[in-house]
Amino acid sequence: MLIVQKFGGSSVADVKRIKNVAGIIAETFLEGNDVMVVLSAQGDTTDDLLAKAAELNQNPSKRELDMLLTTGEQQSIALMAICLESMGLPVVSLTAWQIGLGTNAEYGSARIRRIDTERLRRELDKKRIVLVAGFQGVNKFGDYTTLGRGGSDTTAVALAAALHADRCQIFTDVEGVYTADPRKVPGALKLGEITYDEMMELASMGAQVLMNRSVQLAKRYGVELEVLSSLVRAPGTKVKEVVKRMEEMKITGIAKDENVARVTVLEVPDKPGSAFRILNAVSRAGINIDMIIQANGRGGANDISFVVAQSDAEAVEKALRGVQSAIGFAEVGLDKSIARISVVGAAMMSSVGIASLVFEALNDEHINIQMINTSEIKISIVIDAAYADRAVAAIHRKFFEN
Amino acid sequence: MLIVQKFGGSSVADVKRIKNVAGIIAETFLEGNDVMVVLSAQGDTTDDLLAKAAELNQNPSKRELDMLLTTGEQQSIALMAICLESMGLPVVSLTAWQIGLGTNAEYGSARIRRIDTERLRRELDKKRIVLVAGFQGVNKFGDYTTLGRGGSDTTAVALAAALHADRCQIFTDVEGVYTADPRKVPGALKLGEITYDEMMELASMGAQVLMNRSVQLAKRYGVELEVLSSLVRAPGTKVKEVVKRMEEMKITGIAKDENVARVTVLEVPDKPGSAFRILNAVSRAGINIDMIIQANGRGGANDISFVVAQSDAEAVEKALRGVQSAIGFAEVGLDKSIARISVVGAAMMSSVGIASLVFEALNDEHINIQMINTSEIKISIVIDAAYADRAVAAIHRKFFEN
Repeated sequence: MLIVQKFGGSSVADVKRIKNVAGIIAETFLEGNDVMVVLSAQGDTTDDLLAKAAELNQNPSKRELDMLLTTGEQQSIALMAICLESMGLPVVSLTAWQIGLGTNAEYGSARIRRIDTERLRRELDKKRIVLVAGFQGVNKFGDYTTLGRGGSDTTAVALAAALHADRCQIFTDVEGVYTADPRKVPGALKLGEITYDEMMELASMGAQVLMNRSVQLAKRYGVELEVLSSLVRAPGTKVKEVVKRMEEMKITGIAKDENVARVTVLEVPDKPGSAFRILNAVSRAGINIDMIIQANGRGGANDISFVVAQSDAEAVEKALRGVQSAIGFAEVGLDKSIARISVVGAAMMSSVGIASLVFEALNDEHINIQMINTSEIKISIVIDAAYADRAVAAIHRKFFEN
Repeated sequence: MLIVQKFGGSSVADVKRIKNVAGIIAETFLEGNDVMVVLSAQGDTTDDLLAKAAELNQNPSKRELDMLLTTGEQQSIALMAICLESMGLPVVSLTAWQIGLGTNAEYGSARIRRIDTERLRRELDKKRIVLVAGFQGVNKFGDYTTLGRGGSDTTAVALAAALHADRCQIFTDVEGVYTADPRKVPGALKLGEITYDEMMELASMGAQVLMNRSVQLAKRYGVELEVLSSLVRAPGTKVKEVVKRMEEMKITGIAKDENVARVTVLEVPDKPGSAFRILNAVSRAGINIDMIIQANGRGGANDISFVVAQSDAEAVEKALRGVQSAIGFAEVGLDKSIARISVVGAAMMSSVGIASLVFEALNDEHINIQMINTSEIKISIVIDAAYADRAVAAIHRKFFEN
């Protein structure tokens, strides 16, 4: 069996943790499997390197940042190889250029285009544990690129797809995917299985377990993922296309995202194209928006609200001020003290009354709903950030703790 | 003019020093030159990485150590590029695999075989400052190698040779090559020029300015070197084939090496091949020896003495114990409290009385000479380490301070 394992930065942060991870790898290998391992940079390495760069230049090129950052993962694979060697195991570490991991040209957030599996196969045929530096690639100019946030997960999924691995295990510091954040909701349940679509909705809504891109890639190539803990030996959560689940489980999970802001554009003239021009101005600035709501405002004009990442809020405001006189709206308002709660479940479309259960839970707690958005597998609501944890707990009780 | 500049680890140890070096590079570039720069890892980076590895494995493979260590130089070039970008200068950093710097397969002490100049030329043609990671190469297996101690100097000389550079400047923390260590001998003089051969003798005898290998390579390809300080703007020392020098300068420099040990093999049977078998046992253990002396000992047997690096002393002893009964010598003795003083000068062969001046200087100080060795451009003597600094000062006075 060919197993791809990925360990994040906190799992290899120090000597003790490297040894712990080496134990997991060794066990998998000694059970007779072919093992390929993707590692992230140790602990705070990436942040430390970024801080060093910032001391020299507030606005460095992404090409040189990638040249700098890729050293972190290279150090991790070398150190892990050195640790596995001390256990008498055959091992080889490989960087992106050594395995021909080609990406597009976009430094800092490159997309994987191809993997040359020849060297990887050769090393596996020699019965070596193969350690691959995550997060990095090489573009057509022969330069290092990095894959952006959660890039090492993407590396692992891409390798699993390219080599038709039997398993792809994503080790992290939580034991799996839960119905809600277990640090905040004591009654949160670990899910045995979750669909790709559910995972993506949860991921993009603030559940930090797996980045969206890697789940997307896994879905496209049918790579079954398992999310599990590097510290606790227990089965994790499987992420796959179709899951078996008890009928009564109406939703899969509840996620909270507080890093959002609501943008409200007031008194937009009720003319064809006004809304389009507003949203276009924002998207031209490279900003993703969500939960667009248009409401009738005063005197034949409309108010348009939407949600953006909090870090984009000022950029949105600037982009809108730039088109204010041309479009003729009255004002732009920003509210950063909001939270978006998302209730996710593949069974949602076939079950009735889920939305009303969510509203009932919030009503019980006297929490006011500011915005609502629904899709086939998700209900998102925006509320005052101060009530976010209470809202998640209330919804969780309503669905899971009766 | 194409200028290759190399800066060592202490020259780029922190933000302030990186900025200082960036200033030197910028100045050279803005004078209208094509500039290629070779950098070492920052300050103690390499030692820190080795310490990390040692925590995981006392005896890691050299392949994985090289994978680990090459990250240090990559970080240096990325940070320097980021610094130069902040000054608005066009710059690109490149690792060994990007410039096809091919070496033999020997991890940890690889030798350069070829450099693919295509990418380098292309970047220079774009009028970019090209930063190259020193110390590293890639072998025929497609793996990182490192060039061993002083490897970045070698990278710089190899690049200068491959691209027919007009100048190769080795920046370091001293202002050039001196007639003796200026920290120990206040009257030491900075040399304007020195021959490759003299430099090699001084380098191998403990003057840490330039490693022997890089000087050898420079001599072979006729690359004229300049050793100068990254902290003090002043002309340094040129290293070349033939130098102009005042007639009265009989010697070029005096070097001291305290990291040596004397090995004495007592009562070696006076049979053909005994000496050969002893030296062969040592060289089979991969150890370099120097200053071999055979003296008549007691009862038809001989004593054989030679000098090795102090770090090799125990390995020598072990190798000799292994052949002791076969060869039939009485005992092996080790003395680590010695120093080797070398007096170097290309004019030595054409000047008489230099050796006697050296002996006179030591005699004046009542310093006992344990071993003597002479070559065409060098006199080496072994003395008690306790008198090493006094000996160097005395010889220096005799030749330079009259």
